[in-house]
Amino acid sequence: MRESASTEQEGGRLQSAAVDGSLFLGIDGGGSKCKARLVDARGELLAEAVAGPANAFQNQAGARESMVASARQALATAGLSPGLLGQLRVGAGLAGVNIPRVAGEMRQWQHPFAALHLETDIHIACLGAHGGADGGIIVAGTGSVGYSYAGGRGRSFGGHGFPVGDNGSGAWLGLRALQSALLAVDRLGPETRLLDAVEAQLGTTGLGLVDSMAGARSREYGALAPLVLECADAGDAVAVAIVKDGADYLTRLARKLLAAGVPALSMLGGLAPRILPWMAADVRDRMVEPRAGADVGAVQLAMSAGAGVDQA
Amino acid sequence: MRESASTEQEGGRLQSAAVDGSLFLGIDGGGSKCKARLVDARGELLAEAVAGPANAFQNQAGARESMVASARQALATAGLSPGLLGQLRVGAGLAGVNIPRVAGEMRQWQHPFAALHLETDIHIACLGAHGGADGGIIVAGTGSVGYSYAGGRGRSFGGHGFPVGDNGSGAWLGLRALQSALLAVDRLGPETRLLDAVEAQLGTTGLGLVDSMAGARSREYGALAPLVLECADAGDAVAVAIVKDGADYLTRLARKLLAAGVPALSMLGGLAPRILPWMAADVRDRMVEPRAGADVGAVQLAMSAGAGVDQA
Repeated sequence: MRESASTEQEGGRLQSAAVDGSLFLGIDGGGSKCKARLVDARGELLAEAVAGPANAFQNQAGARESMVASARQALATAGLSPGLLGQLRVGAGLAGVNIPRVAGEMRQWQHPFAALHLETDIHIACLGAHGGADGGIIVAGTGSVGYSYAGGRGRSFGGHGFPVGDNGSGAWLGLRALQSALLAVDRLGPETRLLDAVEAQLGTTGLGLVDSMAGARSREYGALAPLVLECADAGDAVAVAIVKDGADYLTRLARKLLAAGVPALSMLGGLAPRILPWMAADVRDRMVEPRAGADVGAVQLAMSAGAGVDQA
Repeated sequence: MRESASTEQEGGRLQSAAVDGSLFLGIDGGGSKCKARLVDARGELLAEAVAGPANAFQNQAGARESMVASARQALATAGLSPGLLGQLRVGAGLAGVNIPRVAGEMRQWQHPFAALHLETDIHIACLGAHGGADGGIIVAGTGSVGYSYAGGRGRSFGGHGFPVGDNGSGAWLGLRALQSALLAVDRLGPETRLLDAVEAQLGTTGLGLVDSMAGARSREYGALAPLVLECADAGDAVAVAIVKDGADYLTRLARKLLAAGVPALSMLGGLAPRILPWMAADVRDRMVEPRAGADVGAVQLAMSAGAGVDQA
């Protein structure tokens, strides 16, 4: 009984808070899912929710549906009325909205929220990592990219996708691993532990590696990246050269971010803890642990974007 | 009148020659067309013909049709009876027959010829380049591969396709050019003339290069290769490093071929004359001009393969 009364009391406070325009929703939209985070005016967490994919580049309508679905689910989880959807001040980070066409189409959306502030996925990741303060991030996962947020301005560095860019990324390391393994098979390049490692992981030998990776995309190449780091740690000269080359690029990327005026950097992505030790000391000295994830960054976007009901 | 009489006389000689089993047809089958070359027992050219694509890997039935069509056309051009199709001793080089499945399917073919000797496209290119004698070739075009023919045995070196292999090829040079241009755009790599050159060729600037080459395949990358050689000739340090890297690989490939026992090498492919000067002197000293094309090599295959009616 007390629990029920408590819930009603809490719900009552929230309903009135919402009427004051003080319900904020952060949305971290990605290609596999859409995470939402509902907070009150003090930033206290009310509910989290997960809905389907929200990739505005690949499927604009689907992304909109997932965003609304995640918002409705967050309200329901918090015990709030679905009618409060129109009171939500939303900050959302979506991959692809750096592309003018995608951003333009999203701006046309007659969304059901009180306000929608839209940024890229990497922007909210940067806000989350530095608690909304100025800072820079380097994402080293399947791909690689740098981002700085300073003086209210966000800037992207590097990236451009595999195989033309994304140096130092998992896909980039993995392709180099396969190339080196094949050179070793043909005895047209130096012997390397990478050959045994790649053969073991792919379950084939010699030129069977070619068939095994025929038509492979960045994700499959990225799956070979840990082997490069393991072989480099074991002292294999070919692997060391690859990792150093990638880490040197990420070091240059980090220096660019620092030159853009950020006080500190964070490394994100699955490769981050493994490749960071290979980067130069001057940039490692400026690294801090990320404070929170992109969904928290999206909330910061929602809360810092002012009371205007217009979209960013 | 004399011309007509002469033609009849020639036709009569040929008809009887064919009855002796001395009509040989060389077929150079490729992805865009199928070239046929009909010769008599002395190797004298009787007719040439061109039919549709003959890529046994992509379209086995189409390859068979093109081969028969080119043979019929060669007989017609030589003024010979279509009924002589069954007297032709055919040597054919087709891309893809190094793949066991493709070779197996081709062997099942109840072909209409007296004999069919089947080899890879690169094997007949090697026979053509060295007049059927022992020798090695390096193909440096959109892709790269080495091949040796010595003591009756052919062996392939390198290759494996873009982007995992084909080092030193046009596609390999072109990808490196684009990567270097983007690093220069981002000021994450050294300045290079390659940026201006690639921008001019693709008709765009800066990060427009990324969109312009999105999803590009080996052929589009290969189209950038001449820029790398031009910039290298002009002394651009980035381009020089790329070309040297590619030429060093091709030098190692050439040494492998020489170690396999061939007395001389030929370079084939559109990139050959441009990258040869960058290769090491010891292998350049062993280079000879190719004597003839792959279609002539196919004739040599047909003529050297003996009288047996079975397929090779």
